[in-house]
Amino acid sequence: MEISPLTVNRLSLYLRCLHSLEGEGVGRISSLELAQQFHLSAAQIRKDLAQFGEFGIRGVGYEIPNLIERLTSLLGLDRIHPMIIIGFGNLGRALAASIGFNSGNFRVVAGLDNDPAKIGRRVGGVLVHDASETAAVVAATEAEIGVLTVPAEAAQANYDRLVAAGIRSILNFAPTRLSLNAAVRTKDVDLRIDLEELSYFLSS
Amino acid sequence: MEISPLTVNRLSLYLRCLHSLEGEGVGRISSLELAQQFHLSAAQIRKDLAQFGEFGIRGVGYEIPNLIERLTSLLGLDRIHPMIIIGFGNLGRALAASIGFNSGNFRVVAGLDNDPAKIGRRVGGVLVHDASETAAVVAATEAEIGVLTVPAEAAQANYDRLVAAGIRSILNFAPTRLSLNAAVRTKDVDLRIDLEELSYFLSS
Repeated sequence: MEISPLTVNRLSLYLRCLHSLEGEGVGRISSLELAQQFHLSAAQIRKDLAQFGEFGIRGVGYEIPNLIERLTSLLGLDRIHPMIIIGFGNLGRALAASIGFNSGNFRVVAGLDNDPAKIGRRVGGVLVHDASETAAVVAATEAEIGVLTVPAEAAQANYDRLVAAGIRSILNFAPTRLSLNAAVRTKDVDLRIDLEELSYFLSS
Repeated sequence: MEISPLTVNRLSLYLRCLHSLEGEGVGRISSLELAQQFHLSAAQIRKDLAQFGEFGIRGVGYEIPNLIERLTSLLGLDRIHPMIIIGFGNLGRALAASIGFNSGNFRVVAGLDNDPAKIGRRVGGVLVHDASETAAVVAATEAEIGVLTVPAEAAQANYDRLVAAGIRSILNFAPTRLSLNAAVRTKDVDLRIDLEELSYFLSS
C-alpha cells in the first residue's frame, strides 16, 4: 500500500489533534467534530482514515486511544529515529537546540561539519564530528535521518556521502536541486521557495 | 489568472536554474536541456511556462534574460519585501542570521518577542521589540511578511496580532493548526510533519 506524502502529512496532523483531545480527556470523536475543532475537512478525514480499515463507527465516531495507537504505529512513531545534522552553522545549531525538532521520536545524535573550529566540540549536547568521517559516524550512531544544513554548493557532495554511508532518509534545507538516489527518501525544506510563494501572492 | 502554489514553487525553481545558467554565460536554452541539467520534467516546464505567453521558440529554446525578467516580475522579485520575525528564540535568531533567508529581496527589518531580556537588544543587526507593540512596528517598518517562530501555544495570539496589524502574508513555523484569516496568505513550515513523513517511509 503506497500512501502519498500529502496523505501522510494529514495523518500527522490528525494524530497531533487526537493527542490534544486525549490530553483534554476526550475518549471518542466524530469526523465532523474533529474537522470543526481543528479547521479540517470531515470528508477528507473519513477518506484518509478509511484507507487503514474501519476505525470509525457510523454515528459514534472514532475511539481516540485506538486511533492514536494505529496512526502512531503506521507513522513509525513507536520508536526513536536517530538523526545527524550535516552543517553546524546557524540553522544546524538552531535545529539541534529546538525542542520542536530534537525531541520525542526524533533525536539528534551527532553533528558533522568541515570547520576545524567546530569539530570535536559539543554544541547543545551534540558532538560535532569531521564531515569526512560521515560513514563512521552513521555506523556508530545508527542514524537513520540526515539533516542537510550546508550551503547550496556543498549540498550534493554531502548528500552523496550520506547516501554512501547508508542513510535512508534526508531532510534537505540546502536551496539547490540535488541529483537524488531513488533508494533514499529525500524531503526538501526550501525556505527561499516558500518566501517567493508569499512574494508572488503579495504581488498578484 | 490564479496560479497554484505548486506551480509558483516550480517557477521559483526555474528562475534559480536560469540564474545559474546566466552566470555561466548561457543565453538560450531549450526545455529539454533545462530539464536534463536540473533533473526536471521538460513537459512540465513547457506546460508551466506556456501559461505566461510564448517565451519559447520551437526548436530554439528560451531566451534566458527575457525569461528571467518575466519570472522575476511575476514572482514579485523586482522589489524588497520587508519581514519581521515574531519569536526571537533559537530558530528566529538563526533565520535572521541566515544568508539564504535574510538577503536579496527578503530583509528582516525587526524582531518581536515578549522576553524582557531580549527586548531593546540588537541581535545580528535586528532590533527586538516588545511583541505587544506589533502594530506600531509593522506600521513603522512597512513589513509585508511576518515570520512566526513562537511556540505552538503562543501562535494563534501572535497570528491574530499580525493580521490586526495589517500584515498580508505569514510564514508559520509553529507546529499547530491556526484559525486562518482568508485575506492573509499563510504558508506553514512544519518540520515535525516533515520528519514524520520520513519516519513513515522509513517504517513502511
